[in-house]
Amino acid sequence: MINFASRAYDRRWRIDPIVRSLLDTDFYKLLMLQLIHRHFAAVPVTFSLINRTWTVRLADMVERRELEAQLDHVRTLQLGRQERIWLAGNTFYGTEGIFRPDFLAWLSALRLPEYEIEVVDGQYELTFSGPWAEVMLWEVYAITIVNTLRNRAGLARMSELELDVLYSRAKAKLWGKLDRLADAGITGIADFSTRRRADFLYQEWALLAAADHLGDGFLGTSNVALAMKLGLEAIGTNAHELPMVLSTLAETEAELRASQYRVLELWQQTYDGRLKVFLPDTFGTTQFLSGAPDWVADWTGLRVDSKDPFEAGEEAIDWWASRGRDPRSKLVLFSDGLDVGDILALDKAFRGRCRLGFGWGTLFGNDFRGCHPRGADDLAPISLVCKVTRANGRPAIKLSDNLAKPTGPAAEVARYRAIFGGAGLGHRDVVV
Amino acid sequence: MINFASRAYDRRWRIDPIVRSLLDTDFYKLLMLQLIHRHFAAVPVTFSLINRTWTVRLADMVERRELEAQLDHVRTLQLGRQERIWLAGNTFYGTEGIFRPDFLAWLSALRLPEYEIEVVDGQYELTFSGPWAEVMLWEVYAITIVNTLRNRAGLARMSELELDVLYSRAKAKLWGKLDRLADAGITGIADFSTRRRADFLYQEWALLAAADHLGDGFLGTSNVALAMKLGLEAIGTNAHELPMVLSTLAETEAELRASQYRVLELWQQTYDGRLKVFLPDTFGTTQFLSGAPDWVADWTGLRVDSKDPFEAGEEAIDWWASRGRDPRSKLVLFSDGLDVGDILALDKAFRGRCRLGFGWGTLFGNDFRGCHPRGADDLAPISLVCKVTRANGRPAIKLSDNLAKPTGPAAEVARYRAIFGGAGLGHRDVVV
Repeated sequence: MINFASRAYDRRWRIDPIVRSLLDTDFYKLLMLQLIHRHFAAVPVTFSLINRTWTVRLADMVERRELEAQLDHVRTLQLGRQERIWLAGNTFYGTEGIFRPDFLAWLSALRLPEYEIEVVDGQYELTFSGPWAEVMLWEVYAITIVNTLRNRAGLARMSELELDVLYSRAKAKLWGKLDRLADAGITGIADFSTRRRADFLYQEWALLAAADHLGDGFLGTSNVALAMKLGLEAIGTNAHELPMVLSTLAETEAELRASQYRVLELWQQTYDGRLKVFLPDTFGTTQFLSGAPDWVADWTGLRVDSKDPFEAGEEAIDWWASRGRDPRSKLVLFSDGLDVGDILALDKAFRGRCRLGFGWGTLFGNDFRGCHPRGADDLAPISLVCKVTRANGRPAIKLSDNLAKPTGPAAEVARYRAIFGGAGLGHRDVVV
Repeated sequence: MINFASRAYDRRWRIDPIVRSLLDTDFYKLLMLQLIHRHFAAVPVTFSLINRTWTVRLADMVERRELEAQLDHVRTLQLGRQERIWLAGNTFYGTEGIFRPDFLAWLSALRLPEYEIEVVDGQYELTFSGPWAEVMLWEVYAITIVNTLRNRAGLARMSELELDVLYSRAKAKLWGKLDRLADAGITGIADFSTRRRADFLYQEWALLAAADHLGDGFLGTSNVALAMKLGLEAIGTNAHELPMVLSTLAETEAELRASQYRVLELWQQTYDGRLKVFLPDTFGTTQFLSGAPDWVADWTGLRVDSKDPFEAGEEAIDWWASRGRDPRSKLVLFSDGLDVGDILALDKAFRGRCRLGFGWGTLFGNDFRGCHPRGADDLAPISLVCKVTRANGRPAIKLSDNLAKPTGPAAEVARYRAIFGGAGLGHRDVVV
């Protein structure tokens, strides 16, 4: 029996929107945005989307008008009434009222500014320019949209049966990974896959599966919309854009070096001493730790991103010990391209020596490698990023712990390296 | 938007019928039934359902009233008009008009007779007694129903997410098997899973997957309803019940020995010299072949069931050669508990030496081993059979090639063994 009303309604959609809520983003974007809104709202910035997997020519497989229609749809979104109530009334990390009324009022009125789009050498170059507070949310939506459109292009070449096999294999693969984590009694798993997920509904499935299989071992998700929908914890800390932009505001080398700690001072003011997990690798972890004021060692923990995670964990434990803190009370949150094998090995190396968290991203919400029914690799994950590239009229620089992964013009990277030094930097291959 | 009409209609079902058409059976049942209807319609027979996997106590997991409701539903079924037209008008094995009008007229009026049900030691004992032509179709429906109810009992203990994982794993597993067959260029695959399938819809999925992945390597299905629905070839030959019942009609030892060839004489009369694949193992393959009249060697091929398939293939090839026939023109159809590893090994051993067919059953349409999300084995296949146990007032006997697998009372088995001899018999474990 056909439901004529539903059928006619479904046919009316021009597009199947990829991002349907401003909360379909990482929680740390909102945490950072509140700080930015209070202190740096008007700083002019530019975010740029870059496909690090240049062999995948996105402009050849995704139509420009499709991309524009999706981006335009995001510009129609506003924070909904129920969403505002949830942000205001929910408890995050055990704390009520994290988001202040003035911020929520401003956020409720926000609409995203325009974007610029160009095609260069088979790639889309997307740029987002304007006041930092208005622009910064574009990052996650832009990556998510481009990534999802690329996945849809791969899916469009498959029959219904092939799609069924594809998803069956992907689900079986993910459940097998969860089996291994559950068998090993791993805790501290969080979903960090939003920007590189297969799509929204698959991320939701993965979350439901992880919550079911891992129980208390699964902490929650970085995705605010899914945390709200499913009643999970929203998980997040902060990201490179804070020190990157703050460093462009520095007028002296001393201010530049200090800017990475200034971020943390503002953070603990903003969140009344809560949510204290720092990200030390923007200009190199080793120099960050050795130069840190002593109060930084009182923070709950740190997030490991670009450094070899085993080295980074040892370095963090040694540092806390050298500062007279007990590393067993401290959190090390691993978050760079993790898969289940890495998580098991890191757990083995560090369990009992510190508290452990695992931000599991691409290979949680988008691991379709080996799942294509005809063996194609159309759906293998690609490495898309959308970084702040200019701020305050200057290039924005990230050095990271990986010598292969700096962002910014060479001359400015060199200037930053001279200032911050090269202690503890190394080479790592970028997988996802 | 709720479809109220569909919702109200769906809620009205008292049961979800497992068998919804008399054509939801193996094609060979219809082929045999036409012969029986013409020559032996009134011979009194009894079929009995036996669970060989006695460790699975079916009566403890399947409610009797559920079982009765399903069996009662089958007794309401009659051949539909469209089904009769399809049987009359379709081409089977390249031949039109296989089913004669008088048979189809009789079949269209058929309703299945009553059943008897008892619970003994945790097992359902189902018996079906009456004229052979009216009773014999019960076999497949009874096995299918009991098997599916047992599967449903296992599924009923699982959450929606767990069911999704279960089916994802099963589909991924089956597709992986098809990958291996396709990579090896295997041909001659047919679905023989009807009676031991997971359920009707899963068998349909498996068929669609096999037809898609194997292409011309996939011959079709033994299931008449699915062949009709999906436009596939209906595949089938004949089964043990013919020689088993005919042997009970014999009055002398010579007639008894001859009855196994009398079946083939009647078969070639009924089908005008087509569909000539014989099943030699009812009373032992070796004695069957050595005692066979020479015209049996003119048949297209044979089906291997209870004997070690490598031995059986070699024996058949040697026998055709000894009778002056070219084995390369002959078909060997393997059909006992095959899985993909067996098929690959048999193909390797025999390709080029004879024509090959593989009747793939339980482990095609019901291999959920290792697929349960919590590692339970609720859905591991069990070995249910429904065999003719009495005919013409006498016990019905099957010796088979497997000394572990005779059916019938010990004294009568011993009498048959004395008549047919023990040449070529051996022990094989029964897996499915």
